[in-house]
Amino acid sequence: MDKRRITLKDIAKALNLSPSTVSRAMKNHPAISLETRDLVQKYAEEHKYKPNPMAMRLRMNRNNVIGVIVPEIVHYFFSTVLAGIQEEAERQNYNILICHSNENYDREVKSIEMLLDAGVDGILVSQSKSTVKYDHFQEIIDNGIHLVFFDRICTGINTDKVVVDDYVGAFHAVNYLIETGCNRIVFLGANPHLPISTNRKMGYEDALRNHRLPLENEFIAVCDTPDLVQEVVPRMLSRQPVPDAFFCINDEVAAYCLQLIKSAGFRVPDDISICGFTNSYITEVTSPTLTSVDQHGFEMGKESARLLINRISGLETKSGVVSRVIKTDLVVRESTR
Amino acid sequence: MDKRRITLKDIAKALNLSPSTVSRAMKNHPAISLETRDLVQKYAEEHKYKPNPMAMRLRMNRNNVIGVIVPEIVHYFFSTVLAGIQEEAERQNYNILICHSNENYDREVKSIEMLLDAGVDGILVSQSKSTVKYDHFQEIIDNGIHLVFFDRICTGINTDKVVVDDYVGAFHAVNYLIETGCNRIVFLGANPHLPISTNRKMGYEDALRNHRLPLENEFIAVCDTPDLVQEVVPRMLSRQPVPDAFFCINDEVAAYCLQLIKSAGFRVPDDISICGFTNSYITEVTSPTLTSVDQHGFEMGKESARLLINRISGLETKSGVVSRVIKTDLVVRESTR
Repeated sequence: MDKRRITLKDIAKALNLSPSTVSRAMKNHPAISLETRDLVQKYAEEHKYKPNPMAMRLRMNRNNVIGVIVPEIVHYFFSTVLAGIQEEAERQNYNILICHSNENYDREVKSIEMLLDAGVDGILVSQSKSTVKYDHFQEIIDNGIHLVFFDRICTGINTDKVVVDDYVGAFHAVNYLIETGCNRIVFLGANPHLPISTNRKMGYEDALRNHRLPLENEFIAVCDTPDLVQEVVPRMLSRQPVPDAFFCINDEVAAYCLQLIKSAGFRVPDDISICGFTNSYITEVTSPTLTSVDQHGFEMGKESARLLINRISGLETKSGVVSRVIKTDLVVRESTR
Repeated sequence: MDKRRITLKDIAKALNLSPSTVSRAMKNHPAISLETRDLVQKYAEEHKYKPNPMAMRLRMNRNNVIGVIVPEIVHYFFSTVLAGIQEEAERQNYNILICHSNENYDREVKSIEMLLDAGVDGILVSQSKSTVKYDHFQEIIDNGIHLVFFDRICTGINTDKVVVDDYVGAFHAVNYLIETGCNRIVFLGANPHLPISTNRKMGYEDALRNHRLPLENEFIAVCDTPDLVQEVVPRMLSRQPVPDAFFCINDEVAAYCLQLIKSAGFRVPDDISICGFTNSYITEVTSPTLTSVDQHGFEMGKESARLLINRISGLETKSGVVSRVIKTDLVVRESTR
């Protein structure tokens, strides 16, 4: 081991424990067995472990900084949420530090370390697609720092969250497609381990059930990037009878889908209706313009920041988890009948 | 004054000096008069000023963190630059903390304070549209922290920079419009105090001059948002003879411009050609698809991060200013003849 100060991480590595277990063991947390606590504390003592003095000092001087971790940044929805977070933070005289996990678990872990080192008062997280372990989130809480999830929540951690009503948004959109005469509706979704995708799929399925339409597995695909559109949509169009609507996980997919369907010779919306999700500005610049579900990202950002700041300042005192739901709206344009 | 530790800012305020002057006066910088140095140092002593110990300590422990300040975040170009910065930083084992100035001077100042407090090793900045004072940038340098500007550079500060060859990009694009038969070409630009706008305008003008076409002031307008498109473009279309091309400051403006021109009954590109700038993905989803100048934002991000990290690590040793230029490419699609 090099000469730098030993950290909780080093102890965890040496003893083959998670950093969060080590952190809790050091604080005599009752969830950790006496044996483990002994083991950890003895090791820490022998190796002259000291808590990070800078981080502690920064934490004592309340400095009104919030950390935010987003999984994607070249992304209309997340950048809109960031703008909302910033507006609310500014109003309440808080500053924000942004980290970009790039859908990468290691980067998410690193981002949390950086934000804790920077002495933030609280952290807002939308988790990366590749994250399946949650110790790093637990570490935030164990450090006494407030944590609020937004949009992509981590179901493995019990903490405050702000989500979009993806289920209702999808249900209404698909319902609208059915009521305007479509009955062979494709769902282009995302990775099923993301709750946002599962919830929208459930909304899609329930709308079909509601109208006694059959659920067909062939009409459902993971298709959340332009590349996948090129692969998946031609396959869908070659089916007989041809689908008469595409309900897409985001506007980017919907826009590429629209281009492909038009160039395959179908008329939109006469032959095929298309509906996106997000309501970003590209919905206004395609031909025809795109119907989409507005997720109100700006509102979500403001609400998330408000909840976190209320936790920090003690205004929000509920001892359990606070969950807020942002309502969606279907914005009908020219791509649907 | 409250009881917290007195800062350089407080001294500056009390003595009606800039923080950067105070910072330099404390270090006996020769650019500051002996009188001012005396005044500042005496005041600091009387008020028990101590340099921020956390910031100093963090700075001593090299922690491989770069700060980045962007003026806009719901913005394809800047988010692409951020992605490039991240890729290069990651490759070199650096982490990044992002701040969003939201085109606001005060927020830019605040962001720099936060990043300095967080102990970053260097800062990348693209300045906000509203910034006309530069002390806060000087303060970065005075703190011994490396500073590199990208894209929107601050001409008032002598430091490294990475820019796009806006002039050449615009020149080639307008040249292409002329060579494909257009000769009444509108330039929809941005605020003239931004070098990116002035440089593109010069490229536009020189291309016209090169072909001995007249420069008409009525064909040049500040029009860099969708709202301005609604106001400016109808005015341009009502001129006789009608313009036969629009060269736009970004793709968003080009896309809205395209919608408006089509709905006014003109054919694109037969009657009017349209060219954007950025080459974002919306160029592929409009009908017709948009010709655009690719700024290679990802490359710019990588190059900026590389230069800054080389300064931090001492690999880049040039004593003067290093300027790097990212080349652009015209990507021809369907919206031009």
